[in-house]
Amino acid sequence: MTTTSFGATLAALKGAARLCVGVDPHPSTLAEWGFDGVEGLRSFSRTMLDAMVETGVSITKPQVALFERFGVDGMRTLAQFIGEARSHSILVVADVKRGDIGTSLAGYASAWLSPGSDFESDAMTAVAYQGVGSLEPAFHLATEAGKGVFVLGATSNSEGWSVQSARTTAGDSVAHSIIAEVAERSLRAPRSEGNWLGVVVGATVDRQQLGLEESTFHDMSILAPGFGAQGVELSSVHDVFGSLTPSVIPSVSRSVAGSTADGLVARIRQHQSEIRDG
Amino acid sequence: MTTTSFGATLAALKGAARLCVGVDPHPSTLAEWGFDGVEGLRSFSRTMLDAMVETGVSITKPQVALFERFGVDGMRTLAQFIGEARSHSILVVADVKRGDIGTSLAGYASAWLSPGSDFESDAMTAVAYQGVGSLEPAFHLATEAGKGVFVLGATSNSEGWSVQSARTTAGDSVAHSIIAEVAERSLRAPRSEGNWLGVVVGATVDRQQLGLEESTFHDMSILAPGFGAQGVELSSVHDVFGSLTPSVIPSVSRSVAGSTADGLVARIRQHQSEIRDG
Repeated sequence: MTTTSFGATLAALKGAARLCVGVDPHPSTLAEWGFDGVEGLRSFSRTMLDAMVETGVSITKPQVALFERFGVDGMRTLAQFIGEARSHSILVVADVKRGDIGTSLAGYASAWLSPGSDFESDAMTAVAYQGVGSLEPAFHLATEAGKGVFVLGATSNSEGWSVQSARTTAGDSVAHSIIAEVAERSLRAPRSEGNWLGVVVGATVDRQQLGLEESTFHDMSILAPGFGAQGVELSSVHDVFGSLTPSVIPSVSRSVAGSTADGLVARIRQHQSEIRDG
Repeated sequence: MTTTSFGATLAALKGAARLCVGVDPHPSTLAEWGFDGVEGLRSFSRTMLDAMVETGVSITKPQVALFERFGVDGMRTLAQFIGEARSHSILVVADVKRGDIGTSLAGYASAWLSPGSDFESDAMTAVAYQGVGSLEPAFHLATEAGKGVFVLGATSNSEGWSVQSARTTAGDSVAHSIIAEVAERSLRAPRSEGNWLGVVVGATVDRQQLGLEESTFHDMSILAPGFGAQGVELSSVHDVFGSLTPSVIPSVSRSVAGSTADGLVARIRQHQSEIRDG
């Protein structure tokens, strides 16, 4: 079980140890692996976890939508996966993308970050369509319980551009405005335990067009999906993120799951060596 | 059990029958009602449902965050509430505010809209920070299964203003851009079964400042929280929404739950009569 805070544990991870392995039980992946129903979901999660333990992966990111799809049993399976991963000292970033007004967001924060809760993770992802301020209960709980929150900043999918590139009254892009506001809160937070506040920025995002300078991020952690199957090689993390690289948590999913469980361990090792050599 | 589509059922509801009763088991509300733990959550939901059945309420909106807070048992309780409400022909709008890229959003859509799933509801709320296009799997499933989707447009909380009022490259506010894109999809959808696509617009929102004209909405349904405890009287729905009023689903939560279960039925009846007289 993770005993130190998320921020402190994360700060100690360097290079290949920062690889985040996504657990995305897409219907197509389950079918390709020959798995069916919630029993198949359980087998998939278990197989992924075994491979992560074998390869010494430090961070995992379950895509909660693909567990929620299976209803109550899916959520129980997810709770089991989270608990087992954490018992192996693997940091769990619950990819829930929750967002709501503060009084409701407090419920989500409690679900995913409260010590002792079924879904207790080390960090969660959150969405600020209702404003960064609406996520305050999650920031507060993260500080108290030594957890992390990653707020969606700029995402890799093309449909998100219209919203994320819109200009606030201050003239910044929405993505910039959200990231800057999270950074400001991160700077105000107690620093002794490492960075617990971060943002999600896709590897394929054109940061310059969104006005995202390196200074915008201060030293916040950046969870970066879009590596592997989505087209950006892990070996090019430094080309993509430059001086931000030490703060980046590169995340891979599809290129790890592949189309069969065979070779899973080898695919993870391959990704680890890509980062090491990069 | 609801057999006709969400759109068709909704279209037949007029005046007070359009009142949506929120089920928001806030920790403070449960404490005030004298309820504790997941057993208390169950009693709260049951009491709310009994009162809705007694008063002939047609639409309910459970705040999912406040069930999710209780982990797996909380989600089971929610599934039971949804199933029982629907067995009484009460339309359930699951207030989940889910959003993600399409392939993940498909999981959420399946969880909340798929016939036969644990959480099968009549409609769900969704967030378009990653673009309206990313919600396509929910729109698709809603069409197929006769369900509804309400996309967050403009919300009542002040923290949301910065994002929602930002200007897209076309010069529109983000809220306008999202609502217009949903409206366009709604117009393209099969019309025979009523309006299945809608948006969430808070009752206290300054629509004019966001460029939200009545024509922006076409004849989409508008789920409107912010009535009752948040300051806008139900009797003033027409003052607030003008010619849009027939499309509005006014939602109340805190003013119904109050600070004790006593008088619950009377409070619902009071709200119904406010709409009738408004």
